[in-house]
Amino acid sequence: MSNKIEIKPIAYVRNSRKEPTDDYWAEIVSEIELVDDFDVEAFDTIETFSHLHIIYHFHKAEKVVIGAGHPRGNKEYPKVGIFAQRKKDRPNHLGLTTVKLLKHTGRKLTVSHLDAIDGTPIVDIKPVLKEFLPNDEIKQPDWSSDLMKKYWE
Amino acid sequence: MSNKIEIKPIAYVRNSRKEPTDDYWAEIVSEIELVDDFDVEAFDTIETFSHLHIIYHFHKAEKVVIGAGHPRGNKEYPKVGIFAQRKKDRPNHLGLTTVKLLKHTGRKLTVSHLDAIDGTPIVDIKPVLKEFLPNDEIKQPDWSSDLMKKYWE
Repeated sequence: MSNKIEIKPIAYVRNSRKEPTDDYWAEIVSEIELVDDFDVEAFDTIETFSHLHIIYHFHKAEKVVIGAGHPRGNKEYPKVGIFAQRKKDRPNHLGLTTVKLLKHTGRKLTVSHLDAIDGTPIVDIKPVLKEFLPNDEIKQPDWSSDLMKKYWE
Repeated sequence: MSNKIEIKPIAYVRNSRKEPTDDYWAEIVSEIELVDDFDVEAFDTIETFSHLHIIYHFHKAEKVVIGAGHPRGNKEYPKVGIFAQRKKDRPNHLGLTTVKLLKHTGRKLTVSHLDAIDGTPIVDIKPVLKEFLPNDEIKQPDWSSDLMKKYWE
């Protein structure tokens, strides 16, 4: 039995960030453009939500870590499992971010807080509902807070 | 140029919910079991995080909505685009939930708040970082709050 799952881009990212780099995403505003296979109705009423989850494909990532490693190769950080970090060199190369929806016009969405480069294929968009956010305190290790320091600057 | 993306399960869900139904997920505790292709190190230090994002495959979903429709087929709800709702009959059949990590033992995670049935293939697990959560108010339409009323009961 094959366990392969085939997915396809439903939209693409357009923005000014051409190469994958780690930090400074605050200023990047992106357009998300629905592919032609879909009716424009696929985005109907999406502007009634303030935030969206974007699942995308790290299409330039080539390596895959299947065990543990130091996040960003920084030896001051502990060795952690690939599923205990958000590194792009991961099995299935899927990225996930919560973005703020600034504008919806037909087949285009304008968003901020999307940490994906120009040309990135998007494989799903879901509205953020309060009921799907954690309703208790988030606990995370110090290295992860340190790593994020300049991410949204 | 083919734009197909091939992904594979990295883990499977084990729980008591055998059929897809909409509501009452509060009592369901699930085990997540890493597939054999991975080293046990893939989960190293994951217990230093309280919450995880789980991306999974709605493997029993057969239909795909590519335009708009009434959520849950309920005509009291407006017609909304497939990317303005979280319905399983969506392009690529990907699900996404934030779960609470209760326990990590070797290749197994025990979690609550996973709304996926027994046997569901998981395609990614990422730690939840505060820095990836919305830092401003979530706006969502009334129908979506109404739909969620019994979801986590």
